[in-house]
Amino acid sequence: GSGYIPDKIVKAEKRIQAYPFDTEAWSILIRDAQMKKIEDARGIYERLVEQFPNAGKYWKIYIEHELRVKNFERVEKLFQRCLIKVLNIELWRLYLNYIKETKGSLPSYREKMAQAYDFALEKIGMDIMSYQIWAEYISFLKSVEAVGSYAENQRITAVRKVYQRGVTNPMINIELLWKDYNAYETSINSLIAKKLIDDRSREYMSARRVAKEYEVATRGLDKNNPSVPPQNTFTEVKQVELWKKYIAWEKKNPLRSEDQTVVTKRVMFAYEQCLLCLGHHPDIWIEAAAYLDQSSKILIEKGDQTAGKLFADEAAAIYERAINSLMKKNMLIYFAYADFEEGRMKYEKVHQIYKKYLEIEEVEPTLAYIQYMKFARRAEGIKSARLVFKAARENRSTQFHVFVAAALMEYYCSKEKNIALKIFELGLKRFSDNPEYASCYIEFMSHLNEDNNTRVLFERILSSENLLPEKSTDIWSRFLSFESQVGDLASIVKVEKRRTTTIEKIQAFSEKETALLIDRYKFLGLLPCADNELKAIGYWDLVKHHVLQLPSVSA
Amino acid sequence: GSGYIPDKIVKAEKRIQAYPFDTEAWSILIRDAQMKKIEDARGIYERLVEQFPNAGKYWKIYIEHELRVKNFERVEKLFQRCLIKVLNIELWRLYLNYIKETKGSLPSYREKMAQAYDFALEKIGMDIMSYQIWAEYISFLKSVEAVGSYAENQRITAVRKVYQRGVTNPMINIELLWKDYNAYETSINSLIAKKLIDDRSREYMSARRVAKEYEVATRGLDKNNPSVPPQNTFTEVKQVELWKKYIAWEKKNPLRSEDQTVVTKRVMFAYEQCLLCLGHHPDIWIEAAAYLDQSSKILIEKGDQTAGKLFADEAAAIYERAINSLMKKNMLIYFAYADFEEGRMKYEKVHQIYKKYLEIEEVEPTLAYIQYMKFARRAEGIKSARLVFKAARENRSTQFHVFVAAALMEYYCSKEKNIALKIFELGLKRFSDNPEYASCYIEFMSHLNEDNNTRVLFERILSSENLLPEKSTDIWSRFLSFESQVGDLASIVKVEKRRTTTIEKIQAFSEKETALLIDRYKFLGLLPCADNELKAIGYWDLVKHHVLQLPSVSA
Repeated sequence: GSGYIPDKIVKAEKRIQAYPFDTEAWSILIRDAQMKKIEDARGIYERLVEQFPNAGKYWKIYIEHELRVKNFERVEKLFQRCLIKVLNIELWRLYLNYIKETKGSLPSYREKMAQAYDFALEKIGMDIMSYQIWAEYISFLKSVEAVGSYAENQRITAVRKVYQRGVTNPMINIELLWKDYNAYETSINSLIAKKLIDDRSREYMSARRVAKEYEVATRGLDKNNPSVPPQNTFTEVKQVELWKKYIAWEKKNPLRSEDQTVVTKRVMFAYEQCLLCLGHHPDIWIEAAAYLDQSSKILIEKGDQTAGKLFADEAAAIYERAINSLMKKNMLIYFAYADFEEGRMKYEKVHQIYKKYLEIEEVEPTLAYIQYMKFARRAEGIKSARLVFKAARENRSTQFHVFVAAALMEYYCSKEKNIALKIFELGLKRFSDNPEYASCYIEFMSHLNEDNNTRVLFERILSSENLLPEKSTDIWSRFLSFESQVGDLASIVKVEKRRTTTIEKIQAFSEKETALLIDRYKFLGLLPCADNELKAIGYWDLVKHHVLQLPSVSA
Repeated sequence: GSGYIPDKIVKAEKRIQAYPFDTEAWSILIRDAQMKKIEDARGIYERLVEQFPNAGKYWKIYIEHELRVKNFERVEKLFQRCLIKVLNIELWRLYLNYIKETKGSLPSYREKMAQAYDFALEKIGMDIMSYQIWAEYISFLKSVEAVGSYAENQRITAVRKVYQRGVTNPMINIELLWKDYNAYETSINSLIAKKLIDDRSREYMSARRVAKEYEVATRGLDKNNPSVPPQNTFTEVKQVELWKKYIAWEKKNPLRSEDQTVVTKRVMFAYEQCLLCLGHHPDIWIEAAAYLDQSSKILIEKGDQTAGKLFADEAAAIYERAINSLMKKNMLIYFAYADFEEGRMKYEKVHQIYKKYLEIEEVEPTLAYIQYMKFARRAEGIKSARLVFKAARENRSTQFHVFVAAALMEYYCSKEKNIALKIFELGLKRFSDNPEYASCYIEFMSHLNEDNNTRVLFERILSSENLLPEKSTDIWSRFLSFESQVGDLASIVKVEKRRTTTIEKIQAFSEKETALLIDRYKFLGLLPCADNELKAIGYWDLVKHHVLQLPSVSA
């Protein structure tokens, strides 16, 4: 390079640095790269497909550049990296053209080309725009040299087979294929043509009807949108709706097939197409996997263990792909995956899944430890859960929630009140500055219905030097609500006064005595004043500043 | 009347019908009334003072009309109705003028007039604008005919007494009174004048300083604003702030008096003035009573039992006035009053207070029953509380909360788990259609940590025909969170599916499976997805529609 970088490139790079999914900025870089020598452009293309690994559009641009300069070895490797994962029809057409144009001179050309077409039809033949591939395959097969009647018959059988699959495959221009097929059979043998055509006619009619519906169901979809994290823009929300509409249409089995495998394959094709554009939307992954799981269960119920097992494995494969690609840091996917494998009793796999998530740096481990702990308890018992809790404790990034979860598990599942209390005490040492943790502990303690222990705990927490007055107001409110439940008027008033003193210490909340008095009298959702009065006495201000808690059903 | 009613009057009446505190509309009626014959105007005036019983401005208008037509008997009765309650200086000046002008011919005039002035100074003499009353009283006393040196000396003593009180009373124009007083003493006896004046000088200087501060502290107050329910307008909020500033200034004891009685009287004068304008603000009443209560306690601590008792009784009188006037339906005042009397051990009175509130028609009795029950438990024990609960049950307007409160009281205070459960069962019969009640019962049950009973309760409630599906979503979420706490994966998934079925039954929440899955994994405040993802999968929509519950510390 000359070292000179145009201004618009610098700007685009800055935008990408700020938001790596800025597709507009990427477009500027791409246009620039396309005009460069391939050696200088490759770096940009690599970053591009790294950022958008499932965007057919970008892979195509990259490969086309390599193709222009005839770097076939690199082209081959690029196709290996993307083709199977990225079921984009234009990318696949590029692939077929590449094979046609570069392998023509090889002795194995006929086999290679037929394999490529078969592979393409298997993967992308359900696409509504796949007519051209079908037609090209047929004309390729027709063009194959055949010497002798045996070879000629073989050729006819091969051509007929593709025709017969194609005319029952819903797609645009299916009518052309049908007309061609009719002409073909007539040209081969006009005597049996009618019978052969009649045999396919009903299925063709159905496919033609479905093709029309297919067009409606996919109208408006922008299949070349690269996947970006949800932005919840109007356009995006519309696209999500359209994708879900299309998937729902496939789920309704428009071909009225009685073969669950056929239905499932078509639905999964829709999901795969959708994931190319909405690969950062966790719900699509989860629903795709759940659909496979459900199909698997249907097949097993019908007695088809093998297909059932296959679909279950495919569900697992979907999860596996998700956590190894765009959903790498999405807890929800890990949890759903783990539950799926737990459901199949693959406990070893579940351990691996949780551990894989927890090994990622920069992620928040707390909720994952909690789910892991719950799994361990369910699948292997409390001792296994305790080991997970131990690991969680040793991880310095875990938040207080895991102590609460562990304590509640001991209490509610193992009925071990004393262990639960010990865990809460352990947590109190570590989170002595955290009012939320204190609240959880206090809530637990008060449900034990041991007034003196509860009172002692309140006093211990409130007298702790680690808890800043700013953070103690919630605890004071809880103390008040506790005394207002079980105490006499004198203790209520006493706690109320101590609370007021604390609140006054913190903020300029003078002249708010009455607002604080509301807490003495509220119960569940009931408040002793009208709304305008509460506003006038400054109650909502205190609530807003978290000095008071809103009454709730768990008051 | 002619039967013809002007359009603007009709409009004003309509506005008043819609909002009886519409002072602008009232102004139109008042202007109209003032031009009418008194017989035709009286009805409007009566409605006016009924609606604004503590508005000096309105009483004055009414009385002035009667005065114009010399209906002295009616005037007398009107003053009897308002004077003591309404410490408005202009109303009081009208009263003094009325006495002066109508009683002059009576043989008892001198006594009557002096009594009137004494009465006025006692009630309103602390007003910053009271100079004129002081000055008039003095000139009235000076004008009294005195025959003989005994009578003359008596007159001098009387005049001097008022002067000496006046020159130490912070008010505007105190300097004039001081100058007058100096001249007066010099005119009486120039030899002892200096000593007498010197004796008062320090106190006068202090009063003069306080008068200046007084002016600042009350600047901006609109003392003629009639009391209306809090509207929380900008102007109102400003006025509330100014009133509180003025009261706070008096509480700081600017006169530096060591006599708690003097300080209290001045503070209470400020409160009384404030209540004329903010009589619909419960906090003013409560803080006034609390201040008296506090003063009472200070005096008792200092050994002055009598004054202490007096102020405590005055606190009670404030509450009594509140619940018999503008605060008639304000629960908070009743509760504060009840607690105040409970603190003085006047339990019989407390019963009366709660009963008085509960006898009002159209009020919501639930929270009052709950507070009443709590009082009964604290003061007289659980048996007394149970009687209150019985009365609450028999009142068909009480809501479910009272059952929850009673049950929790049995559990937490009396440690009677079985009675608590019986009460919850009793409530379930009456509130079987109420999901909030069901939630409370379930929450209670789950804290008992008896999984099977909890499960049975969930099933009973969810299978009840009285609970509409629309209302059961919360309970389903709780069931899910319960199973996710103690159940195995199969039970979790089962409850989840049943919940999904219910939700789908209600609303068009199709394609939201993933959003519903979030509930399986959330814990306290932790959620398994980023915010933009939660939005994209429609989680917040479900939360907004109360299909899902937000995670909370009491998860």
